[in-house]
Amino acid sequence: MKDRIITLTTDFGISDAYAGIMKGVILGINPEVHIVDISHEIEPQNVAQAAYLLNTARPYFPDGTIHVVVVDPGVGSSRKALLTKTPCAYFIAPDNGVLEYIYKDVVEVVSLTNSKFQLTSISNTFHGRDIFAPAAAHLSLDVPLHEFGEPVTSFARIPQPRLEHLSDGGIAGQVIHIDRFGNLITNILDVDIPHGDIRVEIKNHMINGLSSSYIEGRGLVAIIGSSGNLEISLPNGNAAEVSGAECGDFIKIGSTSLKT
Amino acid sequence: MKDRIITLTTDFGISDAYAGIMKGVILGINPEVHIVDISHEIEPQNVAQAAYLLNTARPYFPDGTIHVVVVDPGVGSSRKALLTKTPCAYFIAPDNGVLEYIYKDVVEVVSLTNSKFQLTSISNTFHGRDIFAPAAAHLSLDVPLHEFGEPVTSFARIPQPRLEHLSDGGIAGQVIHIDRFGNLITNILDVDIPHGDIRVEIKNHMINGLSSSYIEGRGLVAIIGSSGNLEISLPNGNAAEVSGAECGDFIKIGSTSLKT
Amino acid sequence: MKDRIITLTTDFGISDAYAGIMKGVILGINPEVHIVDISHEIEPQNVAQAAYLLNTARPYFPDGTIHVVVVDPGVGSSRKALLTKTPCAYFIAPDNGVLEYIYKDVVEVVSLTNSKFQLTSISNTFHGRDIFAPAAAHLSLDVPLHEFGEPVTSFARIPQPRLEHLSDGGIAGQVIHIDRFGNLITNILDVDIPHGDIRVEIKNHMINGLSSSYIEGRGLVAIIGSSGNLEISLPNGNAAEVSGAECGDFIKIGSTSLKT
Repeated sequence: MKDRIITLTTDFGISDAYAGIMKGVILGINPEVHIVDISHEIEPQNVAQAAYLLNTARPYFPDGTIHVVVVDPGVGSSRKALLTKTPCAYFIAPDNGVLEYIYKDVVEVVSLTNSKFQLTSISNTFHGRDIFAPAAAHLSLDVPLHEFGEPVTSFARIPQPRLEHLSDGGIAGQVIHIDRFGNLITNILDVDIPHGDIRVEIKNHMINGLSSSYIEGRGLVAIIGSSGNLEISLPNGNAAEVSGAECGDFIKIGSTSLKT
Repeated sequence: MKDRIITLTTDFGISDAYAGIMKGVILGINPEVHIVDISHEIEPQNVAQAAYLLNTARPYFPDGTIHVVVVDPGVGSSRKALLTKTPCAYFIAPDNGVLEYIYKDVVEVVSLTNSKFQLTSISNTFHGRDIFAPAAAHLSLDVPLHEFGEPVTSFARIPQPRLEHLSDGGIAGQVIHIDRFGNLITNILDVDIPHGDIRVEIKNHMINGLSSSYIEGRGLVAIIGSSGNLEISLPNGNAAEVSGAECGDFIKIGSTSLKT
Repeated sequence: MKDRIITLTTDFGISDAYAGIMKGVILGINPEVHIVDISHEIEPQNVAQAAYLLNTARPYFPDGTIHVVVVDPGVGSSRKALLTKTPCAYFIAPDNGVLEYIYKDVVEVVSLTNSKFQLTSISNTFHGRDIFAPAAAHLSLDVPLHEFGEPVTSFARIPQPRLEHLSDGGIAGQVIHIDRFGNLITNILDVDIPHGDIRVEIKNHMINGLSSSYIEGRGLVAIIGSSGNLEISLPNGNAAEVSGAECGDFIKIGSTSLKT
């Protein structure tokens, strides 16, 4: 089928030829597919980061897009290679939790075991090239899911940081991602935030109220970011550097009438 | 229309999914467009650098190319979102000076206000995704300019470093860009350079004459670079490291019979 | 011809517009070609690294692919610009040894001298844009090789690190590449490795036996990597950092019954 999109999310970096090789394999099977890089700069073997990034990207791709994720510390082991289908898209990835955010939407999963849709020779170190890329390319040619391998009924999960409801009525979340601009992206969604005047605390910094854009206010601001998550930003600056915050650090929100 | 090109120049970096998300939005609207990355590694919020790079790239793209620039420190403020047309190309960008070098060529400008050509929900932090990418994709389908919004008659400028004519007959310019190889690219064009034997001074280094290629001479060389600008280079080395020069540093050219 | 692939391998980096400009030139000539980045992060002017990466990538691209390599310290000198043909692919590159690994497969070589297939104005500093990109695009439109320029009968070579057969029956090779994961890739191929139990020595580290995947064993492991070369890896870690090894360092393999 023409105009199908295959996206790539990997920890291969861009200095080596690994991502380019996957594209060569894909285009050798389906020369008409569009390949879009989501990121090849996932921190090596950071499954949670890949899971998060993929989840922010997937709503913006057209129906039928095939997302390939290769962050694969267990390559060559007995971990399964998965092809999963949601109502809108397909996801091809190792069974290591990188599909955590997709889990709830999955309608069908198979294990990529049919050697017909793999390269002839399978290495123990580069399944992105030998198994995942060819599967994506064949799927883009409308090979039915059940031909790729046997159904799988469950797959690996990873712990997601959870919100904590504090005894004083506030909530506590965590920094789950820091982007290039130093924005601290948290697991607190807009729907989680108490109504009324709020106060946000991160690493001994206090922020009063929510800003509606980066350019309001002075110093650190709290804002609902582009994925609906609460972010801490520093207009024209780098909030991560100024606050010293890192992934995993806690953030608290209370109403201003509460002690935080 | 098939085979239209959309280029992207942003400060999003390549670790996050932001650039990939813009591509998803574009291909969801026009699956047949070619997307070309000019750079996603503009220094965060460095409007002048993006303006310069775009200007060096645009002559090499075919007529009708749509250039999208998202270096946007004012995202979410009242700054306009622009769609501009020159005789050869289209430029979609925030109204913050990033189109400085295009200004003189512009034949039509509109403000991107028609919500029909935007995503349904507009964030205050990611107009690249919500406004600029969809505008580019719809434009590539030949939507006429006036449908995107009302005409605009002027737009933001940024100061360009100017040449100074010295009392001794020489000229002084500035380093405006340093590339990956450490080449110091200046705002002195080939047409500005005095005829005859010249001497170039940068950071206490003296260079006699112009070289015609990187491999001539020893030590730092002065050469007309690929965009017609005077560059200071170090063959098989890094002129920026050796000279200690930075963007904004002055460079002087005099004839060898003058005191420089 | 539709669906032809042009790959790019350069040392241009991704901060500058150089790679994007080459794509503009190519698509201006053939709007239907697929352009695939192999890497733009070759170390500046590291011809040997580009030669190695290209060689690992080329088997995975379909027949007829056009590989363009621009790592070109001699740009503007009298070094030739080459178009070479192997039974499966085409290679366009400066004549500086970057095609070392292709040499044995070449069936035809011409020098890119016909100005009809170059940009109108040729700089002395950016032949990627002025000569190599247009040649690739015209070749993708099936211009015959002999139209590009006169035949060439030999081209530049670079020394390849060779295996040494030790007096005790072992072999010594070298680290030829370190990838993003810190894997130390050597010039020892699977066919070179003695049968039976082996012991591998690198930088005073001893490794017993070959592992079949990254997840076996503790500490450094020796493994046959995805290109068939012996690699030293550290499962869930970085072998380069832990061992202190660098490109060019020696690695020895002996049978465990030998003194190594």
